[in-house]
Amino acid sequence: MSLIYLDFNRTTPIAPSVLEAMQPYWSTHFMLPDQEHSHAQAVGEALEHAREGLSGLVGCEPFEIVFTGGGTEANNLGILGTLGTQEPGHVLVSELEHESVQKAAASLASHGWEIETVPCETNGLIDPERLGAQIRSETRLACIQLANPILGTIQPVREIADICHNRGVSVHCDASQAFGKIPVEVTSLRADTVTISGHKFYGPKGSGAIYVRRGMHLTPIAYGEPREMGLRPGAENIPACIGLGAAGTLATKCCVDASATLFELRERFTKGLMETINPQPVFLCSESPRLPNTVAIEMPGSARQIQKSARQLVVAAPRAATPPDEMTRALRAIGRTEAQIGRTLRVSLGWINSRDQVDRAVELLADACDGVMA
Amino acid sequence: MSLIYLDFNRTTPIAPSVLEAMQPYWSTHFMLPDQEHSHAQAVGEALEHAREGLSGLVGCEPFEIVFTGGGTEANNLGILGTLGTQEPGHVLVSELEHESVQKAAASLASHGWEIETVPCETNGLIDPERLGAQIRSETRLACIQLANPILGTIQPVREIADICHNRGVSVHCDASQAFGKIPVEVTSLRADTVTISGHKFYGPKGSGAIYVRRGMHLTPIAYGEPREMGLRPGAENIPACIGLGAAGTLATKCCVDASATLFELRERFTKGLMETINPQPVFLCSESPRLPNTVAIEMPGSARQIQKSARQLVVAAPRAATPPDEMTRALRAIGRTEAQIGRTLRVSLGWINSRDQVDRAVELLADACDGVMA
Repeated sequence: MSLIYLDFNRTTPIAPSVLEAMQPYWSTHFMLPDQEHSHAQAVGEALEHAREGLSGLVGCEPFEIVFTGGGTEANNLGILGTLGTQEPGHVLVSELEHESVQKAAASLASHGWEIETVPCETNGLIDPERLGAQIRSETRLACIQLANPILGTIQPVREIADICHNRGVSVHCDASQAFGKIPVEVTSLRADTVTISGHKFYGPKGSGAIYVRRGMHLTPIAYGEPREMGLRPGAENIPACIGLGAAGTLATKCCVDASATLFELRERFTKGLMETINPQPVFLCSESPRLPNTVAIEMPGSARQIQKSARQLVVAAPRAATPPDEMTRALRAIGRTEAQIGRTLRVSLGWINSRDQVDRAVELLADACDGVMA
Repeated sequence: MSLIYLDFNRTTPIAPSVLEAMQPYWSTHFMLPDQEHSHAQAVGEALEHAREGLSGLVGCEPFEIVFTGGGTEANNLGILGTLGTQEPGHVLVSELEHESVQKAAASLASHGWEIETVPCETNGLIDPERLGAQIRSETRLACIQLANPILGTIQPVREIADICHNRGVSVHCDASQAFGKIPVEVTSLRADTVTISGHKFYGPKGSGAIYVRRGMHLTPIAYGEPREMGLRPGAENIPACIGLGAAGTLATKCCVDASATLFELRERFTKGLMETINPQPVFLCSESPRLPNTVAIEMPGSARQIQKSARQLVVAAPRAATPPDEMTRALRAIGRTEAQIGRTLRVSLGWINSRDQVDRAVELLADACDGVMA
């Protein structure tokens, strides 16, 4: 039984070319850039080459890229690094943000900061005007993700950033879910800091980065030997940085084509489900701008039971109401009832899915539904 | 010209068996433990197996091991995680500590903590009685490394920990330099938190862990989805954890033999230098308990010039007086003059060095000395 993996928003396998790019840096070129030897200098040059590969993906200057250990660290650095030394003020956090964004912001409350949630509309989008109305004179930062991992909705980050900047408010954008699925250009986004997570687009686990707009002054959130523009201490994880650079180069090359292919596969998949499952499933936020690979589906029966029954498939279902998991939080944010949430699956396609896999997934879900409804 | 690498205290190449252990977790077993599938559960089991491998090295229970992204993060967590929610008090930091320990402690000063340095004796050791005399009623933590990367000196951590615990003071021990060189048992060390750094003992870069004694209550220093006993958020870097576990298993197996071999190689090396270089070099802290692989050597000429001249060798020399680098700081701590520091090389041997390499290194250093002194 070969597995059909439809959970790419959770994590991706590493691309073969990425693994290959990393390989020499484990043992042949294992030195660190600051060792005094020409071999070490060559490693330093490879690191800067990786930074360039990543800056190409993001559309920024290489020196605006800071390597981190992953998306969670980048979100922590974007928020706490931006606000760390400021006098306490007010922060806006969209209701759809990842737990690392919400909790990093919440941690500031004990230092006198006020953290306010920007509610999500039922279409899965944050309304820029509504966010704008929540800005006060003491607002320092707004946190808005580019794409939601559950609903796939793509937020109007540029519009929000313009409103924020007009009022002197910085913008942190968690774009973890967008890279490799849609083109992302920081010059269009206009956010001040942007989170990149390697394992979401066929890069290595333990790799990530943050775009820090030229002129932004962040303070590090951990301490040690100064590396990465002084923003991240500790010996560089060279293989991870090289891998992230390679993943960036790869995604830059194939993102437009991949985006079209993912869209076509998802349409085929949803059409298949409409034709085979009765009562018909509901595709959430389908009228909103969405990632081409993602669909949240309200099924006619229990999502957990369908998930358990279709063991050849890997798809996501809500797991916990208290404390709510990421999926439950996103679905509550768009006003779904607990009963509806319990019937919702999240499918997220990847570069390596085929039409055959998608067709087979439809069959398996239809069979599982029959079993659950019987 | 094949390189002779004698800088293992800075970083090590990954062991082939470690790389092999990691390999399946990049693409075949790429899922994360919390995904809902039996394949993901298998990854979770591998992660716990890696934790056991590491706990064997450290001599603790698996649940006392928290995986981190490296030694710097572990030092930050050990210090800031221990003191994070306490009322400001007093912290003792040995003069020989790594920059990540010193700066993490120093960062507390802005929150009202007083940070006091425990001076190093000229033999490269911290005197437990002197440290004990610096303890006050408001002292909360003492930071003491197990082994110094430059001098190789092994600190009386157990004695210090006993003094501290008798006065109600917690102990953080950075043992990064000790693993794989000497046996380390936390039950003997008696420290409350102990830092482990993967790339120092043939594990992957970007891997590390912290031993947290059962009953210690740390708070996380970054925020997100709770992982690793709630102390480290973010998707697990599974390949790195697997690799660190494998490195732990390997080091547990061969540490005693390796220790004897490294000692023999170092004796051969220092004897060779004594016989060929004139005036004879001075081996620092040679009367103190030291790592078997490490020697700091005052040469008759400029260390930087010798280093530049002997390009086939990779050894460490001081690089910057302001701000002082790690080597300069350690040498100043034992009272060496700036002139003496400028003549000091640090050689650190590794498991893969051979007698031939050591003999050749002696020749190369002797030739380089001749050139520099000419």
